[in-house]
Amino acid sequence: DVVGANDLQRTKLTYESRANLAKSAVAKRLFNLMASKQTNLCLAADLTKADDILNVADKCGPYICLLKTHVDIVEDFSEGFITNLQSLAKRHNFLLMEDRKFADIGNTVSLQYAKGIYKISGWADLVTAHTLPGRSILQGLKAALGPDASKERGVFLLAEMSASGNLIDDKYKENSNKIATEGADVDFVAGVVCQSSKTFAFPGLLQLTPGVKIDESVDKLGQQYQTPEHVVQERGADIGVVGRGILQATNVEQAAQTYRDRLWAAYKDRVAK
Amino acid sequence: DVVGANDLQRTKLTYESRANLAKSAVAKRLFNLMASKQTNLCLAADLTKADDILNVADKCGPYICLLKTHVDIVEDFSEGFITNLQSLAKRHNFLLMEDRKFADIGNTVSLQYAKGIYKISGWADLVTAHTLPGRSILQGLKAALGPDASKERGVFLLAEMSASGNLIDDKYKENSNKIATEGADVDFVAGVVCQSSKTFAFPGLLQLTPGVKIDESVDKLGQQYQTPEHVVQERGADIGVVGRGILQATNVEQAAQTYRDRLWAAYKDRVAK
Repeated sequence: DVVGANDLQRTKLTYESRANLAKSAVAKRLFNLMASKQTNLCLAADLTKADDILNVADKCGPYICLLKTHVDIVEDFSEGFITNLQSLAKRHNFLLMEDRKFADIGNTVSLQYAKGIYKISGWADLVTAHTLPGRSILQGLKAALGPDASKERGVFLLAEMSASGNLIDDKYKENSNKIATEGADVDFVAGVVCQSSKTFAFPGLLQLTPGVKIDESVDKLGQQYQTPEHVVQERGADIGVVGRGILQATNVEQAAQTYRDRLWAAYKDRVAK
Repeated sequence: DVVGANDLQRTKLTYESRANLAKSAVAKRLFNLMASKQTNLCLAADLTKADDILNVADKCGPYICLLKTHVDIVEDFSEGFITNLQSLAKRHNFLLMEDRKFADIGNTVSLQYAKGIYKISGWADLVTAHTLPGRSILQGLKAALGPDASKERGVFLLAEMSASGNLIDDKYKENSNKIATEGADVDFVAGVVCQSSKTFAFPGLLQLTPGVKIDESVDKLGQQYQTPEHVVQERGADIGVVGRGILQATNVEQAAQTYRDRLWAAYKDRVAK
């Protein structure tokens, strides 16, 4: 079982060693950042006020490798907000990922990435994209970047979703894996958003897994949650994404530290075995 | 072959008669608008300057049933732009559709629909959404609306894409069809974005087909085009979406009229046979 063997290898390797295997320059940066800062926690800052996002980014900054945003839900979005977010990312040493879930034809995603009010390509180190439109999604996003900028930017491709009843099947996952690991645009793919270690084998890609919460549960709109230990050790997550588990905590900073500690311990345990 | 028979029926019925079968109030409005205004043309206003969009909307307004926007590529977006767009929609009698291709979990799409700078639910009669996340996409969007507003709003679900190499297969289409036609949220589904009359049978839904261009071709980023007659008569389109075919014409108004005439004639021919 070749896939099983490759898979075992990926989750057994340290982030440092995988940095050397990454084909995306941003993935390499992120692997190294995670190893040196000792964190595999991504905070999903799903808030609708700019100041609230900046506030949690500042408080949780020391504990995260990645801040995931949905800028299109921010009611008082401004260029100043982005400047402040970038300062915090620099000060606390984390990367920025706009969770845009690009899912249109190449020409449209190219415009959505670089243009509009948000000018995402100008500040987001990473973005998410669905593989549904096929390979052209990568070509479209890349077309929005100059030849130099493309080295500073990367994409996480969605190969699975955490919503119950989603339409992704094994064939879809296999095709997503191919788009992520074959062809001319692999240098632009930093990782895969998925729920299982079996989704891809290549150790130079990062597995980002959303839906992490200490108390496992389901929300009213179909989102399913799993514990830090479960996603890292059973599901193969390299980065665990925590949203409401931190945002709705009484002490946000302390919650971020707890999630960082548990996700990191789970990773250390995984590579030690 | 039951599907074939249903399918034949849908494309043979007039828009007026189908208005009476629609479960979505917005689909009913749109069917009636199309019949009375004699147009099944949707203009894709994929431009990055607000004034350019308002300009083509004003020029093409008399010939279209629907204006499709990507507000997130507009560089000088403002509330005033939306007010002006709504005035033009009222003056020329067309509906507004934000082609957002929502594709996230329920809680996130709810925020993306109602919040942020764009407040899409406040002005777009229709939006597009991927069925990829499953039924929760409808529940999430609906959750953003009050009980009254939901009657004024509708969704086009994507069951196929025009980009070459996309990952949609027959099973995906079948599931999309089920989400569009079964369950508690069918009153919120106005239609299906697809490329073939076989994708769904229910005549109360509208088939919206993008990628219409008089000179068939392929763009550099994988988009494939088909003629007005082909999409209406061979592919089952109820509404044909034209973007670059009109936007890049020397005379935009004349091009809109030509596309309207050809799409409408193709429809009249289809229901007469």
